[in-house]
Amino acid sequence: MKISIIMGSYSDKDIAFDVIGALKMLEIPYDVVVYSAHRTPNDVVDHVKKQEEEGTEVFISIAGKAAHLGGVIAAHTTRPVIGVPGKTSVAGGMDSLLSTVQMPSGVPVATVAINGGKNAGVLAAQILSVGDPAIKERLLAYKKQLQDEVTEMNKKLEADLRA
Amino acid sequence: MKISIIMGSYSDKDIAFDVIGALKMLEIPYDVVVYSAHRTPNDVVDHVKKQEEEGTEVFISIAGKAAHLGGVIAAHTTRPVIGVPGKTSVAGGMDSLLSTVQMPSGVPVATVAINGGKNAGVLAAQILSVGDPAIKERLLAYKKQLQDEVTEMNKKLEADLRA
Amino acid sequence: MKISIIMGSYSDKDIAFDVIGALKMLEIPYDVVVYSAHRTPNDVVDHVKKQEEEGTEVFISIAGKAAHLGGVIAAHTTRPVIGVPGKTSVAGGMDSLLSTVQMPSGVPVATVAINGGKNAGVLAAQILSVGDPAIKERLLAYKKQLQDEVTEMNKKLEADLRA
Amino acid sequence: MKISIIMGSYSDKDIAFDVIGALKMLEIPYDVVVYSAHRTPNDVVDHVKKQEEEGTEVFISIAGKAAHLGGVIAAHTTRPVIGVPGKTSVAGGMDSLLSTVQMPSGVPVATVAINGGKNAGVLAAQILSVGDPAIKERLLAYKKQLQDEVTEMNKKLEADLRA
Amino acid sequence: MKISIIMGSYSDKDIAFDVIGALKMLEIPYDVVVYSAHRTPNDVVDHVKKQEEEGTEVFISIAGKAAHLGGVIAAHTTRPVIGVPGKTSVAGGMDSLLSTVQMPSGVPVATVAINGGKNAGVLAAQILSVGDPAIKERLLAYKKQLQDEVTEMNKKLEADLRA
Amino acid sequence: MKISIIMGSYSDKDIAFDVIGALKMLEIPYDVVVYSAHRTPNDVVDHVKKQEEEGTEVFISIAGKAAHLGGVIAAHTTRPVIGVPGKTSVAGGMDSLLSTVQMPSGVPVATVAINGGKNAGVLAAQILSVGDPAIKERLLAYKKQLQDEVTEMNKKLEADLRA
Amino acid sequence: MKISIIMGSYSDKDIAFDVIGALKMLEIPYDVVVYSAHRTPNDVVDHVKKQEEEGTEVFISIAGKAAHLGGVIAAHTTRPVIGVPGKTSVAGGMDSLLSTVQMPSGVPVATVAINGGKNAGVLAAQILSVGDPAIKERLLAYKKQLQDEVTEMNKKLEADLRA
Amino acid sequence: MKISIIMGSYSDKDIAFDVIGALKMLEIPYDVVVYSAHRTPNDVVDHVKKQEEEGTEVFISIAGKAAHLGGVIAAHTTRPVIGVPGKTSVAGGMDSLLSTVQMPSGVPVATVAINGGKNAGVLAAQILSVGDPAIKERLLAYKKQLQDEVTEMNKKLEADLRA
Repeated sequence: MKISIIMGSYSDKDIAFDVIGALKMLEIPYDVVVYSAHRTPNDVVDHVKKQEEEGTEVFISIAGKAAHLGGVIAAHTTRPVIGVPGKTSVAGGMDSLLSTVQMPSGVPVATVAINGGKNAGVLAAQILSVGDPAIKERLLAYKKQLQDEVTEMNKKLEADLRA
Repeated sequence: MKISIIMGSYSDKDIAFDVIGALKMLEIPYDVVVYSAHRTPNDVVDHVKKQEEEGTEVFISIAGKAAHLGGVIAAHTTRPVIGVPGKTSVAGGMDSLLSTVQMPSGVPVATVAINGGKNAGVLAAQILSVGDPAIKERLLAYKKQLQDEVTEMNKKLEADLRA
Repeated sequence: MKISIIMGSYSDKDIAFDVIGALKMLEIPYDVVVYSAHRTPNDVVDHVKKQEEEGTEVFISIAGKAAHLGGVIAAHTTRPVIGVPGKTSVAGGMDSLLSTVQMPSGVPVATVAINGGKNAGVLAAQILSVGDPAIKERLLAYKKQLQDEVTEMNKKLEADLRA
Repeated sequence: MKISIIMGSYSDKDIAFDVIGALKMLEIPYDVVVYSAHRTPNDVVDHVKKQEEEGTEVFISIAGKAAHLGGVIAAHTTRPVIGVPGKTSVAGGMDSLLSTVQMPSGVPVATVAINGGKNAGVLAAQILSVGDPAIKERLLAYKKQLQDEVTEMNKKLEADLRA
Repeated sequence: MKISIIMGSYSDKDIAFDVIGALKMLEIPYDVVVYSAHRTPNDVVDHVKKQEEEGTEVFISIAGKAAHLGGVIAAHTTRPVIGVPGKTSVAGGMDSLLSTVQMPSGVPVATVAINGGKNAGVLAAQILSVGDPAIKERLLAYKKQLQDEVTEMNKKLEADLRA
Repeated sequence: MKISIIMGSYSDKDIAFDVIGALKMLEIPYDVVVYSAHRTPNDVVDHVKKQEEEGTEVFISIAGKAAHLGGVIAAHTTRPVIGVPGKTSVAGGMDSLLSTVQMPSGVPVATVAINGGKNAGVLAAQILSVGDPAIKERLLAYKKQLQDEVTEMNKKLEADLRA
Repeated sequence: MKISIIMGSYSDKDIAFDVIGALKMLEIPYDVVVYSAHRTPNDVVDHVKKQEEEGTEVFISIAGKAAHLGGVIAAHTTRPVIGVPGKTSVAGGMDSLLSTVQMPSGVPVATVAINGGKNAGVLAAQILSVGDPAIKERLLAYKKQLQDEVTEMNKKLEADLRA
Repeated sequence: MKISIIMGSYSDKDIAFDVIGALKMLEIPYDVVVYSAHRTPNDVVDHVKKQEEEGTEVFISIAGKAAHLGGVIAAHTTRPVIGVPGKTSVAGGMDSLLSTVQMPSGVPVATVAINGGKNAGVLAAQILSVGDPAIKERLLAYKKQLQDEVTEMNKKLEADLRA
């Protein structure tokens, strides 16, 4: 049971590493490649099929501008597909967001925030946690850690206010 | 193992019935209520906790305008939360979409298209299908049905062209 | 030498008939089908390959929302692909327009106006007219006809002003 | 009688200090913390309740992206809630603005400009000035100061024009 | 102590009656006129001054398109000014919203949702409730009523589900 | 006969100097001040009245965000008012543009491009040229100069191509 | 001395009649035709030249979508050109507005509100009033009439409130 | 048989060189000039006529803001016109994109992505390849090269992952 990350271009690397960071933290196995819906369409399809056979249960696509990658993957699998729209110059990524989220009836792409690589990883873990108490535990621990980060923020704020 | 649908207002009923239609087709048990993040915030939280105990594995929120419902649910659970932004007058629902999808790091909401109730249901089923071959089969059958619908569309088109 | 029109859904029929109207007027042979990038992805690819073999020189895609059809066709052919974004509720079709036009480097989709079926037909004819003086003649005649329409408009305006 | 400022993240610090600057100038007592609607939802609610008991009459929320903080506070109090949308990459903060301002009937958030921390402070003082002539005096003095700033601007402009 | 409602045009009447409905429900005295920032600029200023003398503690402006009314009022008073942006054809009122909310430093307009007349009334009551326990009571009762409405919604939903 | 430039803030100085540059080039007398529609509303009105008496025939306003200055001037004069929307973070100045251009029936503001100070100056000169052959001559000379600039651009391009 | 109105299509007729209504009210002579920047580009240029010779001092263009008409006229004259962007499906006319207003340095188009035909007429009269006291008088009378309309609105509102 | 590139300003040079890079790679003859639809409108028309006589089969326009150049060229030729919208501050080029793509019925401009110079070159080659097997071969080779670039990206990614 693993996550397959497909990025549309090497330039999406930073977002991919945010996904990977979240998956590592939550101890979820993953696989990552660059395949473009427009430059290597057959490789995308072959990769999706092969990944399914190797146990991929969730796909994560990362793509910008006319971001078709999530939709192309979703067209070829019944596994959940998470789409991360990349930030662009067009109103900060409205092209990527709309191209990813506005999927037609029957073929969803689970869209997270623009450049939301970390959340794609967390969402993938949440999906795998269905029927897996161990991952649920790790997610609860992570939720606790988010709270601790806010506690730290308050300490910094108090220091600022005293300064 | 079931899906919990929460709609922010009774006016979201049509979208909710699209979700329910998809879940019925895919034979997924569900629960549906109206609870508002702003008018009944405690009820939302209590309901989420109770639903978790009763075996809810995926939450679906339906909300429009400043659509905070998905985020509020996600703040109180580690289960996947699917958000359906409702259509509004503001550019057709850009307020709902951005309020739903632009979640901060650590707390994702899996966003589908504006008014995309059917896809929320399909995505929920895809999530439950992780480790459940029976749902996977139903999703494959549904994918086949989507293709058949296109075949029907071509027949209608041919009839139009002959006319 | 013909034009291949692919519409993503039967609901795009009116736009398709605008394309067809322009092609008929300019005496350009065409072929039209419904194939969805998301519901029948393999059919799209097979159709593109077959159409190429049968002499299609220009493809026209018609699609709305996360309009990936033009991009998917362009990924599988080196023929020019014209994309018609369909009108939607999202600011009148901004989702369709951005999904169609914002293609990555190396894989263009020649995008016309939202719901611009007629112009897709005219552009296809302009493309085929390269090295074909007969089509060039017809396009010049059409340009003359556009001017005549403006003359008629002025007559109606003058009648209104007298009224 | 005081103002309670809640910022969704430490990264909103600069806006918070703009609020504080205005409140100090207008001699309004305040309290400031970091609590996130999504990472520490219970802390937000507890803090709101406690602040009310301690005499908070106006809440100010500062949040960006899917900015739910103002709405969550407003769901738990009948005190006026002022929302400051934070600047983001999405068209400069359209996500934050729409998430803050488009509240449903019955639960308003008084929204100021994107990054408008200073105006949130001034508005809070205006609200407290209802029935408080001393604050009204300070606000009138501040309005006079705004005019003096324009007088200074004209002196700089004249110097530029002579240069 | 009363609320002064100023609408920029008679065409804003429906929004004004939403404001009035909320104020009547919460037993807040009000005054309402039509004065346009662009057609009767002096009347706006005179009215603001006179209203202040007559005990207005909060102003509510209702205006659409280049909605300058709230800003013009705020320029002439230190009382809180609530702005209601009217719905228009431009993306559903983005012109009105941005013209109302994006005020410069020092002169806030407390902006509510597009067409959010009811919320303007509720916010005005919240502001007057500072130091007025009776209004606070009515606001709490209203908050309870909002919850009851959701209970009613659930009854309707259950009836729909049984049908 | 002169032009009166009013800028809403000293921070609009660069745009004002673009206006002034165009007016100097076209030998049009002008007057320039900083007056804010929101911070010094009475000064704006007094200045407009005084400028009219001193022979101002065209007003130019420069303002950003909720750019009410042009509208406020237009409310108090029957002279043509040219509005220059300032660039901001909100989609590059969409707030300023919509606040300036979307004026209600009867009170126009002649809006130029975002940050279009030079064009405001040229437009003011075009307006003064009505019935003034000398300014018309200068405008024709300027139009010729615009063409010469393009000729220079082609020389640079040719040099680039040879390089 | 007259105004020349050019509309890009007969479908802009309603806007043109709004312009004409304002010009008639203000007793300004005018001329109106349909000429399209794209369908009859030479006619536009010839008409502009001929109109200039016949005493046109201001041009008014009415056009929607990729509204190039104002820019094309401005390229061929040094007279002021007023552009009226027509309402469309794209966010209510954002395509028309941006195509009209965002002119390059040196070639302004004085843009009024989307569908703002009446204001184009008023602005044209304001321009002609430079150095023409009779038109200035009529504009002052019109400004008075705008105020009277607001007085009438208040009477209707009072009747509504009594009802 | 060649391509004629017209850029609206020397500042569009980088985009023009992207077009030229693609044309050189695909061995397509070209011609490039700076002519502005607004500053040198007659030169644009003369150039289009002359280029047609010299064998231009496709025009490429590069322009930003109120990008009328593509439309003006299309008004004067029946050859295909490709429009490249230039990136601007307005939401990253939404003004250029809408001004280029939203052409009226009968006069298409084949629009590529904002700043999509390379794709304009590739599309021009695709158009010329109609009936030209040699260019078709080069386009297939280029499509292969795009795939090879993705292979290289995967090598870099693997190196990053090992690091």
